[in-house]
Amino acid sequence: MNQETIDRIRRFTEDRDWDQFHSPANLAKSIVIEAAELLECFQWSENDYDIEHVKEELADVLVYSQNLIDKLGVDPDEIVNKKMDQNEAKYPVEKAKGNAAKYDQL
Amino acid sequence: MNQETIDRIRRFTEDRDWDQFHSPANLAKSIVIEAAELLECFQWSENDYDIEHVKEELADVLVYSQNLIDKLGVDPDEIVNKKMDQNEAKYPVEKAKGNAAKYDQL
Amino acid sequence: MNQETIDRIRRFTEDRDWDQFHSPANLAKSIVIEAAELLECFQWSENDYDIEHVKEELADVLVYSQNLIDKLGVDPDEIVNKKMDQNEAKYPVEKAKGNAAKYDQL
Amino acid sequence: MNQETIDRIRRFTEDRDWDQFHSPANLAKSIVIEAAELLECFQWSENDYDIEHVKEELADVLVYSQNLIDKLGVDPDEIVNKKMDQNEAKYPVEKAKGNAAKYDQL
Repeated sequence: MNQETIDRIRRFTEDRDWDQFHSPANLAKSIVIEAAELLECFQWSENDYDIEHVKEELADVLVYSQNLIDKLGVDPDEIVNKKMDQNEAKYPVEKAKGNAAKYDQL
Repeated sequence: MNQETIDRIRRFTEDRDWDQFHSPANLAKSIVIEAAELLECFQWSENDYDIEHVKEELADVLVYSQNLIDKLGVDPDEIVNKKMDQNEAKYPVEKAKGNAAKYDQL
Repeated sequence: MNQETIDRIRRFTEDRDWDQFHSPANLAKSIVIEAAELLECFQWSENDYDIEHVKEELADVLVYSQNLIDKLGVDPDEIVNKKMDQNEAKYPVEKAKGNAAKYDQL
Repeated sequence: MNQETIDRIRRFTEDRDWDQFHSPANLAKSIVIEAAELLECFQWSENDYDIEHVKEELADVLVYSQNLIDKLGVDPDEIVNKKMDQNEAKYPVEKAKGNAAKYDQL
């Protein structure tokens, strides 16, 4: 997301005085709740989904994720790159290529 | 996230030939699964959590969300701004200020 | 589940003095967390799953559901029958037969 | 649940010819989706919840869990007792008493 979008998300919370509800735990709950609404788009069929609905629910996941990033004061690039270091170590290309198995079963 | 981080996420998938597993439905499942691992950091206490573990699980949510953005070929700024239009209409400041009630109960 | 199994679940909690952690909110989190572990059995494939693992994760959902039933002091037959009354009204056979659409789209 | 309630759940599915949608994967998704709706009752407050809403969402979890039990043809008492064997071994009373830590941190 660009800075303008991030600022809009922050202003939305601020204008409504909602920071008081945004504990990390409440935001973690919110991300799961929205992720499950996203999953609901695929509840009975993997292939026949309403793309507009999918976009809306994915947007909700992104917004609450940004809220949690803000609440924790973390840098998304830093935490993602640190995790990617781990992922690359756990899933070496030569073992994981074309294989969906979990790292402990590679 | 900046472009370099996004490129790293894409390269990780590409190098492992994992695009074949990244159907929108599988990625939606993956986002829920990681979001629930994030929630697990707060399972028995809202306040006493391991921040390093929280960062790792939040990073997983961000990575799979980026995978889904890529798979659907959507623009995150576009979908988030469209959703924020809806959120601002559903939660007018004068009604929602300091109130965590759902829009249909405001 | 039969009474003996239910008693075993209750004794497990009691012996460990864990009732203090079993707030309804914490149990709701726990059910989601275990449900997501169940879903993980189907993360990359709908059909190729480890049945023993599925049984274990389903069991976890059942145990935490029983914990929540106990905590709330509700009768599972009563709450399920009340919900089935609603489901039968929302999904009349003549409209819903062979159709996975949500009730508001029937 | 008693046999009458279980029979009612089965008849509901059968009358609507919905068994075709009840793959184990789809039911796992459904359990997560309903579990997240249950969690939504506690999204912004752990203590201030609508008990009638909680009962409805818990009932949905129970119904889909019964659907999955039926689909897999498993015995809930058997799978729960097998899991309780594991739980009792992983959480010995003397270590786990009054302690919410995960077994690998006891």
